[in-house]
Amino acid sequence: MQSVSTSQLLDSLNWRYAVKKFDASKKIPADTWKALEKALTLSPSSYGLQPWRFVIVDNPQTRAALRAHSWNQGQITDASQLVVFCRKLAVTPEDVQAYIDDIAKTRGIPASALDGYKGMMLGSITNPQTLGGGTGMDSWTARQCYIALGVFLTSAAVLGVDACPMEGFDPAKYDEILGLKSQGYTATVVATAGYRASDDPTANMKKVRFSVDQIVKHV
Amino acid sequence: MQSVSTSQLLDSLNWRYAVKKFDASKKIPADTWKALEKALTLSPSSYGLQPWRFVIVDNPQTRAALRAHSWNQGQITDASQLVVFCRKLAVTPEDVQAYIDDIAKTRGIPASALDGYKGMMLGSITNPQTLGGGTGMDSWTARQCYIALGVFLTSAAVLGVDACPMEGFDPAKYDEILGLKSQGYTATVVATAGYRASDDPTANMKKVRFSVDQIVKHV
Repeated sequence: MQSVSTSQLLDSLNWRYAVKKFDASKKIPADTWKALEKALTLSPSSYGLQPWRFVIVDNPQTRAALRAHSWNQGQITDASQLVVFCRKLAVTPEDVQAYIDDIAKTRGIPASALDGYKGMMLGSITNPQTLGGGTGMDSWTARQCYIALGVFLTSAAVLGVDACPMEGFDPAKYDEILGLKSQGYTATVVATAGYRASDDPTANMKKVRFSVDQIVKHV
Repeated sequence: MQSVSTSQLLDSLNWRYAVKKFDASKKIPADTWKALEKALTLSPSSYGLQPWRFVIVDNPQTRAALRAHSWNQGQITDASQLVVFCRKLAVTPEDVQAYIDDIAKTRGIPASALDGYKGMMLGSITNPQTLGGGTGMDSWTARQCYIALGVFLTSAAVLGVDACPMEGFDPAKYDEILGLKSQGYTATVVATAGYRASDDPTANMKKVRFSVDQIVKHV
């Protein structure tokens, strides 16, 4: 099932850029935003465990408070939408059980049919040094959030929605302002989304990328 | 610039799943694969530094050797394409300079006009404890590879190409077999791509995901 041509996809990916200045007056239509929220939930993750939460900050005062801990970058307050990608502080056996129960219910099979799969997941999370290619659970859950970031940015691009991924913020302050840690989460990465301002000076700059020959290597 | 409707996007994201069994006889057409390689290079990354390399393993013997260090998972040998997402072992001041030179050349501006940007990047990479939300350079470069993974999986989905992201492999063995470390890289995550086998039992299972209400929170 193909929904775009190769040239449409590449046109969209070339069209996207990290927006520096959003048009604060332009809002993403509700149905488009709803699709992007759904796209977030459809992101793949290790074992399908989805060790994340996506916090959408609508409150202007909260946005202003976060901007103060984001190098004062204007996108935080001016973008139509602000998504804080949060990872779970820990994936627990209870999370695994809840996920197994969800699979069993969704697919109408007994949970016991999933014992092997459950054992694999429990084996991983109770030996966290095996996760994240040996870098541990926290690195692993963070990586999963970045898959969702890639899905979100690509989905936005093909829908014609501008975005900007942002790492320049203070996660500890975000955690504090959004009350994340007490809920078991921590801020990992941010994406803003909306529409580029007509006077964003970066909008028309040529994209700078290594060529395919430089970074794609066949062996 | 919109290239898909919201329903086309969501249909594609629902259509995709982590393929367990590829049809080993079906190859991705050359022009489609070329677009996916290009999509990889267009992935966003922190500062635009692209601290990665994408190794495409074509050689069947190498594929077989890697499979032995990937829990013997069949996708490694049966998929039309195998991509090893590699991160740089370290982003150096020389990398920053090369990137600055690339920007200056691409955009036809003097490198000196980018001194502020260069200073920011050098400030970051020479204080690696500031990177990756405080988790360090290695975590940071790994996260960038996962953005590219998300871009790749979403791009494949909208092009109607099946894929499977894979973390179940031994990075140290991959590094050894592919000779990555001596070139300054290390294996981070894998994606296989091709076409699902008609008898892949997982193809028709209902997707299991948290609902939007469960993991998207508005504040």
